[in-house]
Amino acid sequence: MLPATTMTAEFDLIARIRARAGKRRDVRLGIGDDAALLAPRPDERLVACCDTMNVGVHFPPDTAPADIGWKALAVNLSDLAAMGASPAWALLSLSLPEPDATWLDAFLDGFCELAALHDVALVGGDTTRGPLSICVTALGFVPHAAALKRGSAHPGDIVCVTGTLGDAAAGLQLWRDTEAGVASSDETTTAFLRRRLNRPTPRIAAGLLLRGRARACIDLSDGLLADLGHVASASAVAIDLEAETLPMSDALRDRADDATRLRWQVAGGDDYELAFTVPELECDALLADLATAGCAATRIGRVLGGEGVRLLDARGDPIAPPQGWQHFPGADA
Amino acid sequence: MLPATTMTAEFDLIARIRARAGKRRDVRLGIGDDAALLAPRPDERLVACCDTMNVGVHFPPDTAPADIGWKALAVNLSDLAAMGASPAWALLSLSLPEPDATWLDAFLDGFCELAALHDVALVGGDTTRGPLSICVTALGFVPHAAALKRGSAHPGDIVCVTGTLGDAAAGLQLWRDTEAGVASSDETTTAFLRRRLNRPTPRIAAGLLLRGRARACIDLSDGLLADLGHVASASAVAIDLEAETLPMSDALRDRADDATRLRWQVAGGDDYELAFTVPELECDALLADLATAGCAATRIGRVLGGEGVRLLDARGDPIAPPQGWQHFPGADA
Repeated sequence: MLPATTMTAEFDLIARIRARAGKRRDVRLGIGDDAALLAPRPDERLVACCDTMNVGVHFPPDTAPADIGWKALAVNLSDLAAMGASPAWALLSLSLPEPDATWLDAFLDGFCELAALHDVALVGGDTTRGPLSICVTALGFVPHAAALKRGSAHPGDIVCVTGTLGDAAAGLQLWRDTEAGVASSDETTTAFLRRRLNRPTPRIAAGLLLRGRARACIDLSDGLLADLGHVASASAVAIDLEAETLPMSDALRDRADDATRLRWQVAGGDDYELAFTVPELECDALLADLATAGCAATRIGRVLGGEGVRLLDARGDPIAPPQGWQHFPGADA
Repeated sequence: MLPATTMTAEFDLIARIRARAGKRRDVRLGIGDDAALLAPRPDERLVACCDTMNVGVHFPPDTAPADIGWKALAVNLSDLAAMGASPAWALLSLSLPEPDATWLDAFLDGFCELAALHDVALVGGDTTRGPLSICVTALGFVPHAAALKRGSAHPGDIVCVTGTLGDAAAGLQLWRDTEAGVASSDETTTAFLRRRLNRPTPRIAAGLLLRGRARACIDLSDGLLADLGHVASASAVAIDLEAETLPMSDALRDRADDATRLRWQVAGGDDYELAFTVPELECDALLADLATAGCAATRIGRVLGGEGVRLLDARGDPIAPPQGWQHFPGADA
């Protein structure tokens, strides 16, 4: 055991982070003291979440540092999006095997690119020695009573999802195939799927549009079935999904047979799309508004009385949960 | 690489954490959704900090899980204390090699014991697979303009410190000696020093008393010289410390010769006491109030024009920085 402060280049690392922290008027004191001083919005709720990514668990060891930086923030902004929140501030706790300024700069390229897109200021955190691990806390705001929760789905609601499903799982398989020397896809498909895995888009704009209109909402980190299982359980309802309506990218269609594709779509995880429920009469208008805003969503099922999530085929018959279905809810506490 | 959700017992872990999260009226939605919904105080600043502890870096691998839980929260509450903040909420991100409910329960014993002492509610976070690592984000409040900062020391101020110095370093050496089979101290000394290492007391009460009275303040995580170096640098002042005034526990006096003791006191780190500066005319009254409140502090030096931190002997001559002095500032961003 060594004291954490033997990382002698840490001062340099902190200075590099501080130089790129971003500015907001509501940051009264940012990086550089014992803690940040922030001005919360007096009439809104503070929304707070925290997620860690560990090397070899959440991303392959050869992932580009810029992609790690992007994704570490993205998975947290995705949680804020699922609450209908607008992001404001982030704290970054970075464990590094050694103080590597080149790695850090590249990491910050990705982190700060996404932070700038959403006007997020980095206000604090720490750097320390340890196996590569990135813990981000994201803070944002949502008006009183406008937050989107998991437990508000009603029988009769339509279930929808933004974007396409299964791309991140396909991107991960692509990475595995490349590692194994198996012949790969064409460049366009490869680039798309890798980007979907490494640079997920937090659906902040969609979350803002869903405020006051969607009933329940969750972001898809563990996989569609697992995450909608949280919604069903928290709302004390059942959810039926129609397998053939699940949105799919062209790249995914190119990469996989029907069974594999379906498995990735419902159990792949890491998609960071928003799944939400909406009263049937209001669904078309909401989907039209989302499409206009550039974050198209698709109807994929319906909320019913009962419990659990079922996947139905075109005839309305249940499909057995595909191999790989996660039987336990995920990591968000 | 495996998906994080292969930690199949994670649901159980989250349920265990949630059951012990603590309650506060300003937590509108706690653990169990994508993010927490919190009601900040409209007339105060939000104070935010984040610190990670990694096994083998910040604590020996055989540290009791309850001690790890206590300390992971304590180091963050110490940062809030150094700002003069009152703590409110925490988020916990826990990386575990395997989903070990027994370990988690013991960890929560320590974490929740300290949280309850300061009315801190655990409002979110995540659990995931990885080498043992604990990242805690602490959130609190301080009235406008009352926050204690590093950059406010004035020439002429008296420098003071709460508690005693060097005990944690002595406790760490004790752990090393035990590992090496070297003869140890008596039980009372051992228990005291181990507690100082493993169960640091965040000086929240002292921080609250210092509001509006102390000028600059910092918590001692990296060691007295390194941390006061931050104050000197941020305040553009010099600091002279009188070595013989540095407060010392009886246990520390028992454990070490003069040179070792001094090294631990000024460079040992992990003490989590508050060092602060105060106008000379107001120093006695403040020290008296601190003593009355049960968090006694000691005069240890003076703020001067210039730069850097000097350690002086009884004749006022500078002492060379002891071996082990950290030349680079620490981990807080």
